[in-house]
Amino acid sequence: MKKITVAIDAMGGDNSPEKTVNGVNLFIEKNKSNNDFLINLFGDEIRINNEVKKYNIPKELIKITHTKSIISDDETPLTAIKNSKNTSMWNCIKSQIDGDADISLSAGNTGVLLVISRMILKMMKQVNKPALAGLWPNKKGMNVVLDLGANIECNEDNLVDFAELGSALYKSIFPNEKPLVSLLNIGSEEIKGTEILKKTHKKLNFLSNENNFLFKGYIEGNKIMNGETNVIVTDGFTGNIALKTAEGTAKFITDDLKKTLTENLYTKISLIFSYFSLKKFKDRLDPRKYNGAILLGLNGPVVKSHGGTDALGFCYSIDLCYKIIKGNLMQQIRNNLNHLKNE
Amino acid sequence: MKKITVAIDAMGGDNSPEKTVNGVNLFIEKNKSNNDFLINLFGDEIRINNEVKKYNIPKELIKITHTKSIISDDETPLTAIKNSKNTSMWNCIKSQIDGDADISLSAGNTGVLLVISRMILKMMKQVNKPALAGLWPNKKGMNVVLDLGANIECNEDNLVDFAELGSALYKSIFPNEKPLVSLLNIGSEEIKGTEILKKTHKKLNFLSNENNFLFKGYIEGNKIMNGETNVIVTDGFTGNIALKTAEGTAKFITDDLKKTLTENLYTKISLIFSYFSLKKFKDRLDPRKYNGAILLGLNGPVVKSHGGTDALGFCYSIDLCYKIIKGNLMQQIRNNLNHLKNE
Repeated sequence: MKKITVAIDAMGGDNSPEKTVNGVNLFIEKNKSNNDFLINLFGDEIRINNEVKKYNIPKELIKITHTKSIISDDETPLTAIKNSKNTSMWNCIKSQIDGDADISLSAGNTGVLLVISRMILKMMKQVNKPALAGLWPNKKGMNVVLDLGANIECNEDNLVDFAELGSALYKSIFPNEKPLVSLLNIGSEEIKGTEILKKTHKKLNFLSNENNFLFKGYIEGNKIMNGETNVIVTDGFTGNIALKTAEGTAKFITDDLKKTLTENLYTKISLIFSYFSLKKFKDRLDPRKYNGAILLGLNGPVVKSHGGTDALGFCYSIDLCYKIIKGNLMQQIRNNLNHLKNE
Repeated sequence: MKKITVAIDAMGGDNSPEKTVNGVNLFIEKNKSNNDFLINLFGDEIRINNEVKKYNIPKELIKITHTKSIISDDETPLTAIKNSKNTSMWNCIKSQIDGDADISLSAGNTGVLLVISRMILKMMKQVNKPALAGLWPNKKGMNVVLDLGANIECNEDNLVDFAELGSALYKSIFPNEKPLVSLLNIGSEEIKGTEILKKTHKKLNFLSNENNFLFKGYIEGNKIMNGETNVIVTDGFTGNIALKTAEGTAKFITDDLKKTLTENLYTKISLIFSYFSLKKFKDRLDPRKYNGAILLGLNGPVVKSHGGTDALGFCYSIDLCYKIIKGNLMQQIRNNLNHLKNE
């Protein structure tokens, strides 16, 4: 059996390669018994090896490819592209073209990653714009939301593509479920929203079927997390605002709760009794579990980890790469896009 | 001294007029010693009087104007307008034109309220589109966000108007503070966002001054609640998605927390020690405190209460009406809009 190969930009994000290699080690410890994957690390060979030595990583599971330079976090896509050819990020993505990897992962500069991924991997011929998809916790588990910021302006055909790409992603993670797709809007009635949304609503209604996805109509912002839908489609501007507003709200509430539960002796005593339950509560909301946005629509998947996450968060994003390749993401996408063409 | 007169549609929203009159009573109990306001109630006189009898409301503080009909929650603006002339909502707004009220409040059908308010009160000549503004809790208190859904598409001039209207509103509530204005976007760098946002950024930079407002540049969704800005400007589509996503996220987290803290005997014991602190935590986040969206840009202010709120929530929206009239909202708006014309 061919092994799943994840190409990792070991140098991207804060505290790398320390963090990335630590994340790789956590991932390997959890999954090595599966014996069905390889990790290719791209970056400064000496620094990576210094980190690898700290752990007990089986040599046959990782491969290190030396690259001279790194793309910095404040570089703009324009200047970065000129100097990107010898970077860890570039080579990590290019290894898919060379047939050496199934998926690429980086915690580096988002803007540059989007641009060079598109340059190297090229758009699938059936898709006009790529989308950045994220996982979002909900009452019953998690759902997919896209686009989270790759395209600030989208027409109805782009949004229909996102529905197809998002449901393929959902099927690759949850193979036994039929994706329910909703369109983010400011009301649930058909007359609400922009002309583009109304046209998208019509097209998705027409395309809805049991094999690919079932279209559930519009969804409002307050229902994103109620677990009644699996894939939420929106343009990149709205998706980015929604995602960040949810993050900000969650932080506001949990910071306030933390202060509340440590404000006096009584609340500190209460923590003795609620410690384990509150720990589970905190774990469920841990943003590291949802780390990793997936760039869809190119001839190969690219995952962006938060730059500021830690080793555990990075491990979750490796896990996401592994899962969606195991779930045949690219084949699911091709199936869905065929459906689109045949109607 | 002329008294502040609040016109109230007593029939709008769930459980009205029971709720609205109960809310009026709560408001009067809190504020009657100020002796500077009057409440005009519009609706079914018999039903309102039956509710008024339940409380000990001083007769000289309220006036009831009988109206025959009510606008239902599922009526569309189009059909409602034809039949609206004898409704409580119509007369509640019209009383401003007759010089009988300073502000109008309704918990009824939002779409109809927006349309008939505009028909009756007309746009201010300096403003092209009205905006629905809301209060949003943050780390240091609260800020104003607008537009929350009155206009799904806005150009740079509309957004500049919203900045002027929103800062006037903020000054009417917090008279001693200079409003800091930010523009909601998907990044904080100047190159980010749509063309309309870039043009708005330029115009607001030019208009920024100590007398009216100080422009702080772009703000991302995750910073809305960090208390570093007072007025957040966005189009009605984005504002509505952001508001509802924040509401949904808050509900998701607090529901989960409630379940966590009652899941077993230990957590129930913990509640004995943390009860009062958690109650304060809950109170701070209570959405009823932020009840009331203000429609700005017309020749008179209209406040929309949530239809589903209770008497206390409705009381908070009466309080909001009272405060912004006391803070000279319309004069603040005229001052700000003059500044706009003079530059």
